[in-house]
Amino acid sequence: MRDALLSPESLEAELRAIGAERYHNLHPFHRALHDGRLNRGQVQAWALNRYYYQASIPAKDATLLARLPTAALRREWRRRLEDHDGDAPGTGGVARWLHLTDGLGLDRAYVESLEGLLPGTRFAVEAYVHFVRDRTVLAAIASSLTELFSPTIISERVSGMLRNYDFITQDTLAYFTPRLTQAPRDSDFALAYVKEHARTVEQQRAVLGALKFKCGVLWSMLDALDYAYVTPGNIPPGAFRPS
Amino acid sequence: MRDALLSPESLEAELRAIGAERYHNLHPFHRALHDGRLNRGQVQAWALNRYYYQASIPAKDATLLARLPTAALRREWRRRLEDHDGDAPGTGGVARWLHLTDGLGLDRAYVESLEGLLPGTRFAVEAYVHFVRDRTVLAAIASSLTELFSPTIISERVSGMLRNYDFITQDTLAYFTPRLTQAPRDSDFALAYVKEHARTVEQQRAVLGALKFKCGVLWSMLDALDYAYVTPGNIPPGAFRPS
Repeated sequence: MRDALLSPESLEAELRAIGAERYHNLHPFHRALHDGRLNRGQVQAWALNRYYYQASIPAKDATLLARLPTAALRREWRRRLEDHDGDAPGTGGVARWLHLTDGLGLDRAYVESLEGLLPGTRFAVEAYVHFVRDRTVLAAIASSLTELFSPTIISERVSGMLRNYDFITQDTLAYFTPRLTQAPRDSDFALAYVKEHARTVEQQRAVLGALKFKCGVLWSMLDALDYAYVTPGNIPPGAFRPS
Repeated sequence: MRDALLSPESLEAELRAIGAERYHNLHPFHRALHDGRLNRGQVQAWALNRYYYQASIPAKDATLLARLPTAALRREWRRRLEDHDGDAPGTGGVARWLHLTDGLGLDRAYVESLEGLLPGTRFAVEAYVHFVRDRTVLAAIASSLTELFSPTIISERVSGMLRNYDFITQDTLAYFTPRLTQAPRDSDFALAYVKEHARTVEQQRAVLGALKFKCGVLWSMLDALDYAYVTPGNIPPGAFRPS
């Protein structure tokens, strides 16, 4: 474990080094997804399981919002809820994700029921919500820093999927377009907050640990998908079975 | 979803049917483990990850103990803490599991540090502790009912591992011997409690859901091991690497 206090710049460098080693753009399932090596049922399984992550992000952000001490911080964080929940029915990130699962031919009621979810997806997503509820506000904010790395993965994913899958259209992937501007705005704020407020060795350790934890959440979601839907015979009892 | 109230006997039959379909003795990794198809490093990975489950069981039981309404119930549940934590240093189930990881040549401090844990293991185990904290006492007690099925898996595991692995001895597997009597005692109590107290359709639904949830915890722990340690190249960043 580290024992020297880092400058804000060195802390940022260590955070970026964690992303360079642990962000899920390096996961074999992500590469298979955007290289076009998956079939429609496997892409459906990805979208169905990822839906639970998308649908839980507002719960995660509301959990953190409820713990933030100032109006300025709450206003900043409230924007994330607006991005995901929208201002009217059918708007916002969660609705756009359902538009994606619709476009892949999944029954919306089945997706929303979460019945076909992999247990590994459920546990990873809920670990994220619990982390934000139970850890320090500083660690909770730091756990959002995977968004530092998301513009790259989003552009890889969108271009790769459009190029490689005839069952996917630009419209189906509409979820990702606003994320390309929202994610950098959000991660700029979170990074500046973390660099300003992680002022002790323990706080910096907690911040680096929070980002490692969050990378583990995203990584293990792809582990569960790769295990269940790429190797035949591994779909756990009760989970979604592509038709 | 079911809508008819079940007799206690039909409820027990449905609980046993869940075990027959979802208990992890059916998992490919369990079969590989006890059929002797794993190498020493893979068995080490199993023991290292399973340690976090063992070490968290007393936390799970203490969490439930704190929510039980009567002295009689608390006395009953306290026995589980005694089984796992023992009455003196070096006694109890957690210490016996460390004896197993010692016997497999794992460094005890490394095992206890949890540094090499798979994220999938961590999230599944913590989901169990959170479930017992957050759901009804009835559902929390029902989630322990996987022990109805554990004597079979323990005898399969012990005989299979002794027969197939020259690096494993009866002494290394000492953890399992007392479980053969403790698990039936505990599950008899939990089953009787659930049959007596699940008196509405909603309560019976919650009880059946709790056992499915718990089967998912155990199953997804083996998914994570099978994915990371059986297929080459899948060990996630930061997790245990067999030497």
